[in-house]
Amino acid sequence: MAAPWAHRYAQRTKSAKCSIIRELLKLTQRPEVISFAGGLPAPDVFPVARFQEACHRVLQTQAATALQYGPTEGYRPLRELIVAHMARYGILASVDNVLITSGSQQALDLIAKLLINRGDRILVESPTYLGALQAFDLMGAEYVTVPVDDDGLQTAHMEEALRSGPKFMYILPNFQNPGGVTLSRSRRDELVALSDRYGIPIIEDDPYGQLRYEGEHITPLVVLDRTNLTRDREYKLGNVIYLSTFSKILAPGLRVAWIVAPPDVITKLVQIKQCTDLHTSTFTQMVTYEAARDGFLDEHVKLIRATYKQRRDAMLAALEDFFPSEVSWTHPHGGLFLWVTMPPGVDSSRLLDSALRQDVAFVPGEPFFPNGDTASHMRLNFSNAQPEQIREGIRRLSIAVAHELEHRAAGVMV
Amino acid sequence: MAAPWAHRYAQRTKSAKCSIIRELLKLTQRPEVISFAGGLPAPDVFPVARFQEACHRVLQTQAATALQYGPTEGYRPLRELIVAHMARYGILASVDNVLITSGSQQALDLIAKLLINRGDRILVESPTYLGALQAFDLMGAEYVTVPVDDDGLQTAHMEEALRSGPKFMYILPNFQNPGGVTLSRSRRDELVALSDRYGIPIIEDDPYGQLRYEGEHITPLVVLDRTNLTRDREYKLGNVIYLSTFSKILAPGLRVAWIVAPPDVITKLVQIKQCTDLHTSTFTQMVTYEAARDGFLDEHVKLIRATYKQRRDAMLAALEDFFPSEVSWTHPHGGLFLWVTMPPGVDSSRLLDSALRQDVAFVPGEPFFPNGDTASHMRLNFSNAQPEQIREGIRRLSIAVAHELEHRAAGVMV
Repeated sequence: MAAPWAHRYAQRTKSAKCSIIRELLKLTQRPEVISFAGGLPAPDVFPVARFQEACHRVLQTQAATALQYGPTEGYRPLRELIVAHMARYGILASVDNVLITSGSQQALDLIAKLLINRGDRILVESPTYLGALQAFDLMGAEYVTVPVDDDGLQTAHMEEALRSGPKFMYILPNFQNPGGVTLSRSRRDELVALSDRYGIPIIEDDPYGQLRYEGEHITPLVVLDRTNLTRDREYKLGNVIYLSTFSKILAPGLRVAWIVAPPDVITKLVQIKQCTDLHTSTFTQMVTYEAARDGFLDEHVKLIRATYKQRRDAMLAALEDFFPSEVSWTHPHGGLFLWVTMPPGVDSSRLLDSALRQDVAFVPGEPFFPNGDTASHMRLNFSNAQPEQIREGIRRLSIAVAHELEHRAAGVMV
Repeated sequence: MAAPWAHRYAQRTKSAKCSIIRELLKLTQRPEVISFAGGLPAPDVFPVARFQEACHRVLQTQAATALQYGPTEGYRPLRELIVAHMARYGILASVDNVLITSGSQQALDLIAKLLINRGDRILVESPTYLGALQAFDLMGAEYVTVPVDDDGLQTAHMEEALRSGPKFMYILPNFQNPGGVTLSRSRRDELVALSDRYGIPIIEDDPYGQLRYEGEHITPLVVLDRTNLTRDREYKLGNVIYLSTFSKILAPGLRVAWIVAPPDVITKLVQIKQCTDLHTSTFTQMVTYEAARDGFLDEHVKLIRATYKQRRDAMLAALEDFFPSEVSWTHPHGGLFLWVTMPPGVDSSRLLDSALRQDVAFVPGEPFFPNGDTASHMRLNFSNAQPEQIREGIRRLSIAVAHELEHRAAGVMV
């Protein structure tokens, strides 16, 4: 029953998109279900002993700081560590370019607050990350979409979208969620040039960039953008705001992520963050710093890469072995997700029902298309299950898929 | 230098209020300054050993949960503990009434998102908590104010404010920030009756309610509201949303607080929180639970009360001893703050400059008045310094006050 003052809710709360995946994930929580539905890192690669030491050290030596209110910008040694870590991926920033956020979802909320007035259009990939659409929806965003193929965003189709006057572009260049695809170097160059020509900033969301299992690292947009800035080499006038996180390389339960942006943009975002949650937990920031420092993070990322590569390979092999030839899927070079495209006429909600009867779960593709799509897709996560579970899950899923294809064939005959 | 796309910032970022106190606090961070400016709990009452044990236990036994993504509503045992804890203060809620937030500032952000459309009027106390104004400003709020006296909000002056159609009322009934005053029982009854008559919900912000140093606990608005609900005793149709936090009774650095509201309001707030930061750190929630459980919290609150009572008393005694009779101040029965009112004509910004030259700091009253005020005030925090520092700080401050009164007297003569 609604509160008697439910008519007082703001316009922004009318969107129902917020709850789609929440409700879905509840269905998948029966222990017998093999779930490819979430986006969860593998708990077996959480560096628990390292966190034990880190907590002990922080509370032993700096409890008065760790348990107290802290600066909105974040814990300075952690910001310095992030600067050093990013430099290894070619991103040359200074501490003043870095704001700590309570997970990347908060980075999206802060950016939405900074940039979106009700009715503003945002240029997004189609499909794109649902959590971003949720954050942008809350500030009243509309969307203009550009389709994605195996080389990422189809930059050849962008001029029309850009002429419609989007406020900014939201791009996941590496191992995109949900598509698993990666934006090619030539398209990155084009994208940055378009951003510059139209004066439209890019939000580069890069939660998975460090989790590459094959191929070579591709220069981030934020770096390509800077090389254009001949008259100011100190990252002051960039068109790119870069986001990344510790969620996929240490642990998501700490909720520690970061934004890289020109200092004046950081100043604005700090003011907005102060109004939003004062600051991210001082304790989790200090524990993250203590856990990551002294080269641990780089070593640990190697372990995660090896683990997830094995799981990706297990999923690709199982799909090859069990799935019918009418179904296609992406071959992600990294990240957590793989994207399956079904033949026309398949209803992915009905397929999910059928899959849940087989005790296997996935996320149907529809919610990832802000302006809808005609084809039928599944997003499959491969990071959270063991290889043998993945094989068994794909086997079960293939049964549901076969049923659905038969059902469709029957439907076509009628 | 502003980004070339700074013209793209949203309307909501134009308010400068966000940064007033931030900038001010930077001035007070010289080690030689005795600062009454912050709102910091005393680090000497942080239960460090208890947190050591809690971290160890959580990582030893439940690391896979603690470091993983978690439910947006919050960690269920912590929500149950909050329900049991609140029951001792007369608030009878169920787990479905409780949402964990990343500090109370986030609770204000979520409520602002739930209820405020640009231009909506919010009824607030004058003066009121600056952080709430900052969160509401970001969603485009306007304000209608009702003045506060020693018994809190002057309910006799409310009808006119209510007739102007505020979207909701934001009230700090206990040891108000900044005024230090407490809403009397009879005014609480009136306020709840007015809320009911006009159908205007109340946000009851109660970060300090458990920190009472004298007098009797006064029934919270959320309880008085429920007693009106004869036909539904299960807290479904309440007009009051209640906020509280672990920041002042355990430690603010963990950023763990909570909202109590009817279940359908919680459902909406959960959706909004999911869009905002997915969930509050699983780890800090579990550590908070492990630290607070088995009666520790109640015992620890007694220690905090004893410590802060001594500091409040030290500040009251020093004000009595050092301050001129033209200056008046509140006598807070609890909380962290005391409010000083200067004689007419004193400029509190100039007084702050003068105080900083004496190595003592406070927050000038102006920012706490959303629609301005004519008098000159200081907010003084007494929780963060030792009694002897408090006495010395008030002595230094009295010198600045005396200078300022002389200056004003000289000004009047000219």
